[in-house]
Amino acid sequence: MNIDSLISANEQWMNAVEPPCPVILSSRIRLARNLVKYPFPGWANPSQRQELLATLCDALCRLPEMKEATVLSVAELSELEKLVLVERHLMSRELSGASAGAGMVISKNQNFAVMINEEDHLRLQVMQNGFKLDEIWTLIDNLDSGIERQVEYAFSPELGYLTACPTNVGTGMRASVMMHLPGLVLIEHMEKVIRALNQLGLAVRGVLGEGSEASGSVFQISNQQTLGESEVDIIHRLSNVLRTIIQQEKNARQKLFESNSRKILDKIGRSYGALQNAHLLTSSESMNLLSLMRLAVDMQLLPEDRRGLIDRLFIDSQPGHIQYNAHGDVEPSRRDALRADLMRTHFNTLPPLNFSNRS
Amino acid sequence: MNIDSLISANEQWMNAVEPPCPVILSSRIRLARNLVKYPFPGWANPSQRQELLATLCDALCRLPEMKEATVLSVAELSELEKLVLVERHLMSRELSGASAGAGMVISKNQNFAVMINEEDHLRLQVMQNGFKLDEIWTLIDNLDSGIERQVEYAFSPELGYLTACPTNVGTGMRASVMMHLPGLVLIEHMEKVIRALNQLGLAVRGVLGEGSEASGSVFQISNQQTLGESEVDIIHRLSNVLRTIIQQEKNARQKLFESNSRKILDKIGRSYGALQNAHLLTSSESMNLLSLMRLAVDMQLLPEDRRGLIDRLFIDSQPGHIQYNAHGDVEPSRRDALRADLMRTHFNTLPPLNFSNRS
Repeated sequence: MNIDSLISANEQWMNAVEPPCPVILSSRIRLARNLVKYPFPGWANPSQRQELLATLCDALCRLPEMKEATVLSVAELSELEKLVLVERHLMSRELSGASAGAGMVISKNQNFAVMINEEDHLRLQVMQNGFKLDEIWTLIDNLDSGIERQVEYAFSPELGYLTACPTNVGTGMRASVMMHLPGLVLIEHMEKVIRALNQLGLAVRGVLGEGSEASGSVFQISNQQTLGESEVDIIHRLSNVLRTIIQQEKNARQKLFESNSRKILDKIGRSYGALQNAHLLTSSESMNLLSLMRLAVDMQLLPEDRRGLIDRLFIDSQPGHIQYNAHGDVEPSRRDALRADLMRTHFNTLPPLNFSNRS
Repeated sequence: MNIDSLISANEQWMNAVEPPCPVILSSRIRLARNLVKYPFPGWANPSQRQELLATLCDALCRLPEMKEATVLSVAELSELEKLVLVERHLMSRELSGASAGAGMVISKNQNFAVMINEEDHLRLQVMQNGFKLDEIWTLIDNLDSGIERQVEYAFSPELGYLTACPTNVGTGMRASVMMHLPGLVLIEHMEKVIRALNQLGLAVRGVLGEGSEASGSVFQISNQQTLGESEVDIIHRLSNVLRTIIQQEKNARQKLFESNSRKILDKIGRSYGALQNAHLLTSSESMNLLSLMRLAVDMQLLPEDRRGLIDRLFIDSQPGHIQYNAHGDVEPSRRDALRADLMRTHFNTLPPLNFSNRS
């Protein structure tokens, strides 16, 4: 499978999730692992990194999860291809700038993505739609064991898995979810929520990862601690906190709707109208409009079966995807035109908003 | 005919005009006349005004133009009914605040509206869609002669018709058109145009008459001079200037479209989307959105046969009409909701904007 078919594939993790999950968009777990025989990528020389890449690609391709996987060498990818992979959360920004020996193995359904010679020798990642941390823990634990049967991991009985950066030592695990929190944003409670999450040892970031703004009311929430607690305990504790936030978001929406339903319907309606009719759309406006369309599905103003399309457009409206689909570099103003065309095409196939039981 | 049926009637002057006129919405001529036997309304006592009202209603109702006309006594109208008549340009604000003896006679098709005991004894008005100053001059001239056969006008062979205010002495005529000039507004040439018109002795006002802002890029342009020139000469000179402005507006639209068609289509598209989906609309936003919909018809993005609906909504979305149709006083925020409901209802019956030959 090559990069083209990988990008155009209708990936399982972007499609409908059962049961529908109004607040949590997707769940992700990544594990950092290193081999005992090699220096960390930052200290290894190019030939060591190349050797490691070959070894690990070999080991990965033997696993049942990686049947028909795509194997990528970062050096052979164009800047645009790398940007697209970053926008899909398959590749980290760090790997996209890495030198010799940097590579990826991505499973056919794109649930599994393994980066090689990023900060650590291996960064395993499993991602799925909805609130599924328990399920994907099982999946990534199996993948991890499959690799460990073939290579020797750097492991200390006292500390756990050894990693290039001390913040990952121990489990090497980062469990995260993407949450859609327009209600908490609109009632201006997000700052308070973020402070509370930080006090619980959880990190909160905007939709595009570290350092990015939270466009479209989408936030990534993850554990920070990797030491002194088992993986299952970390996931259990994180999940409990997430359930509280889901409830707070639902309360916020209810409160908003009861205090001024017209205002919410007006906001959603105008967003829908803009997506159907605009001829210029920036990336950040698109995110905000799509965010309100997701809220429209949650409020049954749009049919549930269109949720997948909206989630897909969150991905496809990003600058890299717009350019990739136009087959090359495109300047920002032309991108805004293409993005508006994409939205018009899709939103004009949608039924009108069903305000009948809401007005 | 009572006021209810007058307001709900589908007036001829609001309906389609042949051939379609993209820049001039409507034409209007009014004549100020006074009877020789009575003091001007401002000097007359209530019983004189009442007597004059009866005399003039009688005379008017004998005319063929006024068959099945509506005869209104201002004192018997509610504030809301008066506001509706003002919003339709049938009644002046001054008459709506007038005391004893103030009245109106409005023809069945609402083309002819005569105010009695406003500033002058008689204010005759003829109004029609499109650019029709010549036609309506003939109509109002006939109406005027019909009245003059029954009463004696205050007329000086030297000065012409005598009026309460010296600015109307002579012809007593004010000829005006409503022009839709979004192109000149968008390229920011309106200030220059207004200065030039003033220098030519023409007055420019916003859509709601004297002292109002020009919402929705609609301007009323009229002659100021009434002395020293015949009615036909005034109309001829005004028409020549208007033809120049029509051409300037067309050039402005062409220029806008050539320099950045995306930006115009984006503006029109978003307006259409807002009218189809908003749940709260102020009066002034409505005017601006409808103004862009009229431009959409001119640009063949919407079918020509919807022009009448859009022109009608310009009238129906005003505060008085919203309240009248809701059968009573309504506070502003509720009016914004009703206005949005009205627009959604009508705009959801429209076809999608036809961008095919414009993008």
